[in-house]
Amino acid sequence: MKNLMMSEEVLTAIVRTIGKREVSLHEPEFLGNESKYLEECLNTTFVSSVGKFVNEFESQISHFTGAKHAIAVVNGTAALHVALLLSGVKPGDEVLVPSLTFVATGNAVVYCGATPHFIDSSESNLGINVEKLRSYLLSATKLVNGKCINRSSGRTIQTLVPMHTFGHAGDLDELIEVATEFNIVVVEDAAESLGSYYKKRHTGTLGLLGVISFNGNKIVTTGGGGMLLTDDDVLAAKAKHLTTTAKLSHPWEFRHDQVAFNYRLPNLNAAIGCAQMERIESIIYAKRKLYENYRKSFEGIEGLQLFREPANSTSNYWLQTLILNKENESLRETILERTNAAGYMTRPAWIPLSELKHFEMAPRMNLESALSLSRRIINLPSSPKLAEG
Amino acid sequence: MKNLMMSEEVLTAIVRTIGKREVSLHEPEFLGNESKYLEECLNTTFVSSVGKFVNEFESQISHFTGAKHAIAVVNGTAALHVALLLSGVKPGDEVLVPSLTFVATGNAVVYCGATPHFIDSSESNLGINVEKLRSYLLSATKLVNGKCINRSSGRTIQTLVPMHTFGHAGDLDELIEVATEFNIVVVEDAAESLGSYYKKRHTGTLGLLGVISFNGNKIVTTGGGGMLLTDDDVLAAKAKHLTTTAKLSHPWEFRHDQVAFNYRLPNLNAAIGCAQMERIESIIYAKRKLYENYRKSFEGIEGLQLFREPANSTSNYWLQTLILNKENESLRETILERTNAAGYMTRPAWIPLSELKHFEMAPRMNLESALSLSRRIINLPSSPKLAEG
Repeated sequence: MKNLMMSEEVLTAIVRTIGKREVSLHEPEFLGNESKYLEECLNTTFVSSVGKFVNEFESQISHFTGAKHAIAVVNGTAALHVALLLSGVKPGDEVLVPSLTFVATGNAVVYCGATPHFIDSSESNLGINVEKLRSYLLSATKLVNGKCINRSSGRTIQTLVPMHTFGHAGDLDELIEVATEFNIVVVEDAAESLGSYYKKRHTGTLGLLGVISFNGNKIVTTGGGGMLLTDDDVLAAKAKHLTTTAKLSHPWEFRHDQVAFNYRLPNLNAAIGCAQMERIESIIYAKRKLYENYRKSFEGIEGLQLFREPANSTSNYWLQTLILNKENESLRETILERTNAAGYMTRPAWIPLSELKHFEMAPRMNLESALSLSRRIINLPSSPKLAEG
Repeated sequence: MKNLMMSEEVLTAIVRTIGKREVSLHEPEFLGNESKYLEECLNTTFVSSVGKFVNEFESQISHFTGAKHAIAVVNGTAALHVALLLSGVKPGDEVLVPSLTFVATGNAVVYCGATPHFIDSSESNLGINVEKLRSYLLSATKLVNGKCINRSSGRTIQTLVPMHTFGHAGDLDELIEVATEFNIVVVEDAAESLGSYYKKRHTGTLGLLGVISFNGNKIVTTGGGGMLLTDDDVLAAKAKHLTTTAKLSHPWEFRHDQVAFNYRLPNLNAAIGCAQMERIESIIYAKRKLYENYRKSFEGIEGLQLFREPANSTSNYWLQTLILNKENESLRETILERTNAAGYMTRPAWIPLSELKHFEMAPRMNLESALSLSRRIINLPSSPKLAEG
């Protein structure tokens, strides 16, 4: 009974916010120069990995985020893979990643021949619980020759990957402080947080490297695409080299100086990215407004909360998020079923990576909050166009 | 003096064939529905990894090549990576690849944790020299528990990767016969040979798996893109699963059952692929005509030959190819310089992979022909539009 009541309440609040319609979770909008720029690609025949839009898209992202360098790549997973390699991850190392994240964060670690080491979430920002991480590292690791060593596995913990969940910035100052204390490099997984700021600095620019995704469901899309961010000149040059088959520049000779990747973003995809970036301020405005609209609709509904940006985050509200109170976690499936059946696409958070069979051997701390959150989160329809109601 | 004379002769023959103009090596042409289909992606908002053009492009390629299954991926390198994994390549194995190929063929082997083992080229089709390969395998390997073992390294030779150079089919019947004799799996690198046939069967469909590239310089482009071909139902399903993060189908749950890749081709890129495939017959017609035009222009020029499709190949003539006689190999640089300076982009073959520093430890047979060919090949401007002169 409580099940049915709460799912009706949630559905009614959604309908009140965005009107009666069938909606997906997140749809891009192409209201600017997308068509014009695609046409330009066809007319010039520059559709592939060389072209002005790739350079322009990199400049736009660099300018928008404040990162000194932005290197366009084929998708967010590729960006993560290369960022981890550049952060010094070697085969046999461990990389600290939240358990509550998209599977790409864990897979990219495996591509490097390393092992993900799962850490717990913060209830207040859905990112990493810094206090818990610090206590854990104090007891579970030791410093040997300047390297943070997992006492139990004997492996080096090289890198920490904070992920800014649903566009909300984690505790970056504190995370970087802990990482520095334990000699661990920080790579920010800002796949979901283009347009989100931590204390006025763009997410993805505080770690040694950061990573953005432009998948179709993201705030700005290129179809598929990603970007590496860094202020480090040497790493930026290496990132470009590693993602473009490590070919040495020459008018006709094909000489490559290391094993590398074909992770180039085609000009065609960069073209729509350029058009999207021209409108990013209004997209973010709409998404923040949509949060306000949901907030009013969910006001007074008991047993859950609409997630609000944490204290130090100015969030892009990529995905609007409900969190059920602990006593209501059993109601989640009914709410998902009811809303999806009514044509409003909602979805839970990812199954925590620590729970996937292929990561069952991976080391981990106590993951109480990640597991609990994953049973209580529901993402709501979040397209910018829904802000108009 | 001979240097200058021959480079003038080559330049004159090029100009006679394609007229006075600045030309790149290979430019795509977008004369069909490319613009319309891109517009459709924007209007429906389906630009990313789900969408009708991905499915349609896969059907077109399956129908055109005769492969039972075609699985679209983000580029040719990704296709090779997954094809090698599916062919059973394990970390520590060796994979036989031609030394004379693009670097991706070697890199994809390394992504699997395996080692490329370089083999020599055939002067008659620029692919693998089968006779030489067979003698080499007889002396250099032994069969242990059904596996082909490199006597010298002790490692398993799991897979052989014939590459159809510049669009000319290699000796597939004989290669498959040798591979079968030595219990080696065949993965065809047909990156350059969409529209090329071996005895009326499309290249890429004779091995267990085949791989096509749709990079910007290819006969059909998607900006960046690739395709896996196979007749095997189980491998096809695995290919789709491995290239789409191994997510299990569910309306909202995110469950992945193995470490996998984000190698999905965006719908945006598939859209132009669909439009290109509608015109492939006329593109191939133009490229074969261009060969005839070059043939007439180069008739009677001594000291080099314009490469003609080998006996069992009906080639797409992806890149038109001059091969200098052995005594003239020292003239190559002058010819490249003269033609490029005049605005006609020409280029040599790749530096053989066996000569790259990062592959210097890789095992190899005697590579006399590959090395010699690489010093004598010059690719000529090959865009289909040049067939009109």
